[in-house]
Amino acid sequence: MTNLTIIKVGGKIVEEEQALNQLLDDFISLPGNKLLVHGGGRSATQIASQLGIETQMVNGRRVTDAEMLRVVTMVYGGLVNKNIVAQLQSRGVNALGLTGADMNIIKSHKRPATPIDYGFVGDVDNVDGNRLASLISSGIVPVVAPLTHDANGNMLNTNADTIAGEVAKSLTPYFDVTLTFCFEKAGVLMDENDDYSVIPHLTPHDFQRLVDDGIIQGGMLPKLKNAFEAVEAGVKQVIITKASALNTDGGTKITK
Amino acid sequence: MTNLTIIKVGGKIVEEEQALNQLLDDFISLPGNKLLVHGGGRSATQIASQLGIETQMVNGRRVTDAEMLRVVTMVYGGLVNKNIVAQLQSRGVNALGLTGADMNIIKSHKRPATPIDYGFVGDVDNVDGNRLASLISSGIVPVVAPLTHDANGNMLNTNADTIAGEVAKSLTPYFDVTLTFCFEKAGVLMDENDDYSVIPHLTPHDFQRLVDDGIIQGGMLPKLKNAFEAVEAGVKQVIITKASALNTDGGTKITK
Repeated sequence: MTNLTIIKVGGKIVEEEQALNQLLDDFISLPGNKLLVHGGGRSATQIASQLGIETQMVNGRRVTDAEMLRVVTMVYGGLVNKNIVAQLQSRGVNALGLTGADMNIIKSHKRPATPIDYGFVGDVDNVDGNRLASLISSGIVPVVAPLTHDANGNMLNTNADTIAGEVAKSLTPYFDVTLTFCFEKAGVLMDENDDYSVIPHLTPHDFQRLVDDGIIQGGMLPKLKNAFEAVEAGVKQVIITKASALNTDGGTKITK
Repeated sequence: MTNLTIIKVGGKIVEEEQALNQLLDDFISLPGNKLLVHGGGRSATQIASQLGIETQMVNGRRVTDAEMLRVVTMVYGGLVNKNIVAQLQSRGVNALGLTGADMNIIKSHKRPATPIDYGFVGDVDNVDGNRLASLISSGIVPVVAPLTHDANGNMLNTNADTIAGEVAKSLTPYFDVTLTFCFEKAGVLMDENDDYSVIPHLTPHDFQRLVDDGIIQGGMLPKLKNAFEAVEAGVKQVIITKASALNTDGGTKITK
């Protein structure tokens, strides 16, 4: 099987012109098949605020009422996504911007309102890996926004890390998949205040020990659970690294 | 060759829930291959205004400065486009939302700043009919937003009537194309105040006579020139009709 590299980048990088340019230059120089998943939360918060819509976060996740859903649909699916697509096209990469509704690639259902009502937030049911694989094999580079749909006419806001993980899993029958999460730190750190303390390699066994020892905690926990789920489901490796280190051998490699 | 129906609908219809639902119900019941081109100007004007950005129109066309480009990219490419795509998916139609940047389907260049500087407005250079045809043949229904790109990293605002005409022309080698412009009136009228005075059939010869007699004038002129250009270039017929009459035999039929 040929290789596929899936890169997930957060809002901070895709929303600043210089950082985005650097990222896309690095992205296009990666060898082989590629797919990009992006965030855009900072722009959404900013435009919502300009429209007089208050952003409410619970446990670090956006509460998405009907008005906020319009904002994220505009910002993730339009502003951020099409800017990336146009920039990739200018670099000779045949990008295609997608939400989960487009070609029905990611179907989800609205998360139950208890214990916390996050509003129009979708939990992924199914990714059409077959459709994505045939696009990729025909030379297309999919650029996926963090939006899904419920097949009843509603767009749903969906976490970009989750989308990256689910998309990666759906493509394992077709490619040897590497999934890279671009992160603000250099990788998973032994000491969160020391960017030189990157743990180069993590297996499920190491992970459990580091959790038990309290070294891995907070926001890194769901990210790593996501990563281990992906390798468990057949993704060859997951890499957690800084966006600026995309073309180096740095960061934390996670394997089965 | 099999048939392809291209429908162009303006903002008024796609931005009102009830009108959009009716349109999409009618659209999906059309037989054979389909493609939708939509506008969205009213939403763009409204959201621009909420963001404190003034809309400036010259000769009925939007002046698109950098800030307005962000708005139309969000609104046309995100809000309006993805809403239509999600609604079509809920009706079992495998829709794919596209701007000209996606898969490089419509390349344009920025219109010269003289005599009137419209800003980031694109005049179409090329449509990739081959790519669109293979999507359509694989069961996809493209939903095209009125946005193109210049291949230098910029999105450009492009008139939806023009996009519909250019897309239709690009697909004539692959399909027998019918292009329908949904209009607020019942068709081309002999008396603009009488919706029952529809001219059922127009050829280039009739057109010239009606222009000379002053019966066809104003905003209808560019629309009809667009239509005759399309039939001249191989589009089988162009229909100008009310959106609500999509499934009837009404409206004005334009042929070579």
